Amino acid sequence: MTTQGVINLAQKLSLFTDHWGPRTVLRLNDYEIKVVKLLGEFVWHTHDDTDEFFLVLKGRLRIELADGSVDLAAGDAFVVPRGVEHRPVALCEAEVMLIEPRGVVNTGAAGGPLTAPHRAL
Amino acid sequence: MTTQGVINLAQKLSLFTDHWGPRTVLRLNDYEIKVVKLLGEFVWHTHDDTDEFFLVLKGRLRIELADGSVDLAAGDAFVVPRGVEHRPVALCEAEVMLIEPRGVVNTGAAGGPLTAPHRAL
Repeated sequence: MTTQGVINLAQKLSLFTDHWGPRTVLRLNDYEIKVVKLLGEFVWHTHDDTDEFFLVLKGRLRIELADGSVDLAAGDAFVVPRGVEHRPVALCEAEVMLIEPRGVVNTGAAGGPLTAPHRAL
Repeated sequence: MTTQGVINLAQKLSLFTDHWGPRTVLRLNDYEIKVVKLLGEFVWHTHDDTDEFFLVLKGRLRIELADGSVDLAAGDAFVVPRGVEHRPVALCEAEVMLIEPRGVVNTGAAGGPLTAPHRAL
């Protein structure tokens, strides 16, 4: 086993300024805990093989879904079920914690210029 | 798929007052997102089959490990690796988010009176 140290989410978020580029900060079995800054509209996309967990740490986040949308403020959490098309939208900058299995691509099956490389902090 | 609604962690934590009794608030694939209030000393225990994720939302938490301890404040996260004996200690009340696979028992292999039933909110 490898012991990972204590990490502070806000400190990790202070290390970068770009948007839509998740950083892995901890590993939990075959899952990754990530932090990301969001601003503007992401692309509509789907993760066919996994649910995706969002916890808003700062700011506000709207997640548009085919049949409506949900609005999240700090302390709010939501799980996008696998196979459900969704588009995150942040009118002002939001800081978010994500949890998903290792190797998930941020744009899912949609791809495109917002597809981010795997990065760890 | 079943869409779970938006949940607020603090609101869920306001619904109970007992300590060491995790409540499941969201499901992510075969994992559960839980909130729990901690106060005092838990039992030394081990989860042989899984890592365990802790995020402190409020208060402070010490996690004693065989070879030392880590101290967490609000916004701090830590993963106890599988197979590593540990004991959470909260000198003042702490509110914590946990993530672990469905069915994990809070006292691991140790059992005893602090073993909590599965509860969802």
